[in-house]
Amino acid sequence: MSSFETLHSHSPDVDLLKESWSQIAPDDRLNWFRRLSRSDAEELFLNLGPSDQAEWFSVLDWSERRSWLRLLPLDDSADLIQEFPLDERERLIGLLDRDTAADVTALLAYAEDAAGGLMNPRFVRLRPDVTVDVAVRYLRTQARKQVETIHYAYVIGPDAKLMGTVSFRDLLLASPEKLVSEIMETDLITVPEHMDQEEVSRKFSHHGLTAIPVVDGQGLMKGIVSVDDVVDVVQEEATEDMHKLGGTAALEDPYLQVPLFDLVKKRAGWLVLLFVSEMFTATVMGFYEKQIERAVVLALFIPLIISSGGNSGSQASTLIIRAMALGEVKLKDYGRVFFRELRAGLLLGGILGVIGLLRILFWPGTEAIYGPHYFWIGLTVSLSLLGIVLWGTITGSMLPFLLKRFGLDPASASAPFVATLVDVTGIMIYFTLASLLLKGLLL
Amino acid sequence: MSSFETLHSHSPDVDLLKESWSQIAPDDRLNWFRRLSRSDAEELFLNLGPSDQAEWFSVLDWSERRSWLRLLPLDDSADLIQEFPLDERERLIGLLDRDTAADVTALLAYAEDAAGGLMNPRFVRLRPDVTVDVAVRYLRTQARKQVETIHYAYVIGPDAKLMGTVSFRDLLLASPEKLVSEIMETDLITVPEHMDQEEVSRKFSHHGLTAIPVVDGQGLMKGIVSVDDVVDVVQEEATEDMHKLGGTAALEDPYLQVPLFDLVKKRAGWLVLLFVSEMFTATVMGFYEKQIERAVVLALFIPLIISSGGNSGSQASTLIIRAMALGEVKLKDYGRVFFRELRAGLLLGGILGVIGLLRILFWPGTEAIYGPHYFWIGLTVSLSLLGIVLWGTITGSMLPFLLKRFGLDPASASAPFVATLVDVTGIMIYFTLASLLLKGLLL
Repeated sequence: MSSFETLHSHSPDVDLLKESWSQIAPDDRLNWFRRLSRSDAEELFLNLGPSDQAEWFSVLDWSERRSWLRLLPLDDSADLIQEFPLDERERLIGLLDRDTAADVTALLAYAEDAAGGLMNPRFVRLRPDVTVDVAVRYLRTQARKQVETIHYAYVIGPDAKLMGTVSFRDLLLASPEKLVSEIMETDLITVPEHMDQEEVSRKFSHHGLTAIPVVDGQGLMKGIVSVDDVVDVVQEEATEDMHKLGGTAALEDPYLQVPLFDLVKKRAGWLVLLFVSEMFTATVMGFYEKQIERAVVLALFIPLIISSGGNSGSQASTLIIRAMALGEVKLKDYGRVFFRELRAGLLLGGILGVIGLLRILFWPGTEAIYGPHYFWIGLTVSLSLLGIVLWGTITGSMLPFLLKRFGLDPASASAPFVATLVDVTGIMIYFTLASLLLKGLLL
Repeated sequence: MSSFETLHSHSPDVDLLKESWSQIAPDDRLNWFRRLSRSDAEELFLNLGPSDQAEWFSVLDWSERRSWLRLLPLDDSADLIQEFPLDERERLIGLLDRDTAADVTALLAYAEDAAGGLMNPRFVRLRPDVTVDVAVRYLRTQARKQVETIHYAYVIGPDAKLMGTVSFRDLLLASPEKLVSEIMETDLITVPEHMDQEEVSRKFSHHGLTAIPVVDGQGLMKGIVSVDDVVDVVQEEATEDMHKLGGTAALEDPYLQVPLFDLVKKRAGWLVLLFVSEMFTATVMGFYEKQIERAVVLALFIPLIISSGGNSGSQASTLIIRAMALGEVKLKDYGRVFFRELRAGLLLGGILGVIGLLRILFWPGTEAIYGPHYFWIGLTVSLSLLGIVLWGTITGSMLPFLLKRFGLDPASASAPFVATLVDVTGIMIYFTLASLLLKGLLL
């Protein structure tokens, strides 16, 4: 391999190496890593996530660490250093060259999930009043240092503010005597340094850009966020939301790499919380014990009724949570959503109610199974279904708004969480309707 | 605005325009659109998704359509044409200039979600044996036509195969007398034309690239996929999976833009299917009616027990489905996952079992509520919880593998679906344990 290729290499073996790495038990990984050739090991190291890099890193001697740390691009080394406790970070930063150390320190000051934490603080600056020819000659001396794939230069005015951008492509294609200010793009899309990464990713997908400059409150440019970093952000955010929707704390590492004990810990929290909340169903059912005693047939439909409430709630909450994450639905839309879901809930509840009624009325031998009052039982089940589906739909769609309103993550309104909330109410709706409709018949 | 700016413009008003567009009822949108200035209308049109563009398009006269269609970049016009029925497409393609029409026809031959359907068939070709200087001069005449943000040229050898890539940046920075073959990157990452878009997006995120060439079976280059298209793909795929996980068919448009009737249709299918399956619970409960009659206390814990099974199943299926989508877990990993989840299920079931037992044993006045055999009832509930959580965890984690094995979408193993599957078994486990443990006491 030429030195050029080493620099840019995406060796096809990386996938294989990563595959092997993920198959090996964590305890054996470092030994396995040590047996690789230096170039293979470097390739793998460059392609691991920060937490895996940190794992590898933490067992190395300090004398070995420098060359591995300096191998990484600036923002990746910041991510790696962020994996370590505060008191170790300074010593790690000390391993970097002075310029990089200053940049990494600046990056570490941003929240990991803000534009500032995502950006690369190094970018190519141009003055507006130079010709394309001069700009290109200047870039030949400057831009070689850039390791990341950078395709734009940023035009900074005399007041130090960002005036425009110009792509390397446009510079390449423009007549050499033109001024940078004549060919630059001035209709700028920028993001503020503290913007949440989810919002940053929406900017990219709205505008189809490959890089967005990050500016501070004074309009000074602080760095650039590249679209390839954003792909990872989008995946991460979606994974986090999905895990929450499934009723578990978000895993930070790939499923097969999370130690069993951590995996259980991430799940036990919600599972226990839901279980303890669901205990109310036993308490509430206790209130209706006398009714059940008199009409055991009522108990038969409890799973059907509460699960329908849970399912419709899960549908509604999932749709709203995802729409919020994509920016399609905002906090102020709660009214519109409420009326939509009210109508959707009535329709869906109506459909299930009719099916439930027909099921009981026309089931072969229905009178033998459900007794002489089977029509009234059917009506009770049917109306309960309407009520519970409506209630589940409204609860599921409004809960994400409520959570968001109070600064909590709407994705916590997971399918299991909504189902649990709805179960208790479902039982109450069912038995209340039963005592109204079946009074004097069964009860 | 200069003509240059118009071409590249990302006017800051676009967000506002899109916002207004989404707030207006679909019937009023076209009138509203017609009242915009031509440049605002174009800006909005360029930034709408294909289905919205098609909506706007379908009411235009044929005489008006041409200028709007030609406004779009190649791959976007292919997407728009794809929104129309087959018999209208040819006439629409006829509105394009001859070159574009040929390219669009080629694109339409690919599945929408394959690399070929995602790619832009236009890319900049270079010969390996020319100097950087010649290449740059050639590009000045050729590359201006490119509307999309393209940063690479592709080096095609005498056998018409892809030999390497060279970024405009590298061309700009290289000495003019060097040969293209000396500065090109030869360690290539390519994707085959029929690769699924989800896999394509994983390639991007593994390798941190901004563009990947698409090649056919003979190694001939067919086009390029850009990372900014992939951001949208990643979002779309995640949205689709999340909707399925929530137990609803995936919505294709933003939540607030889906007409109510469609919204209900997308949800009613799964809801009814789940409801009909859940009817088995009523049938199964019927078998245990005599037991419930003798010990009504047993009925009180049914919601608690079946919901715990559903919750643990939902956790497991969500984690596995997401891991599969990210390529972290593959079909062949089912054995490893099985044993992991077996242990996780035992631990989680054990935790809930112990909490359930303590809840019944130490609840104030437990003997008054649950009768003299409260210890045995507690034990029945506790062991049922262990069994049902274990069963839910195994079912939830294995179902995605089963679906994938038979070529179905693993994401169909939604939280509600798994919960429904587990409910019937949960009731059976509970009453079987009850008849074993409570025989001679309550039963």
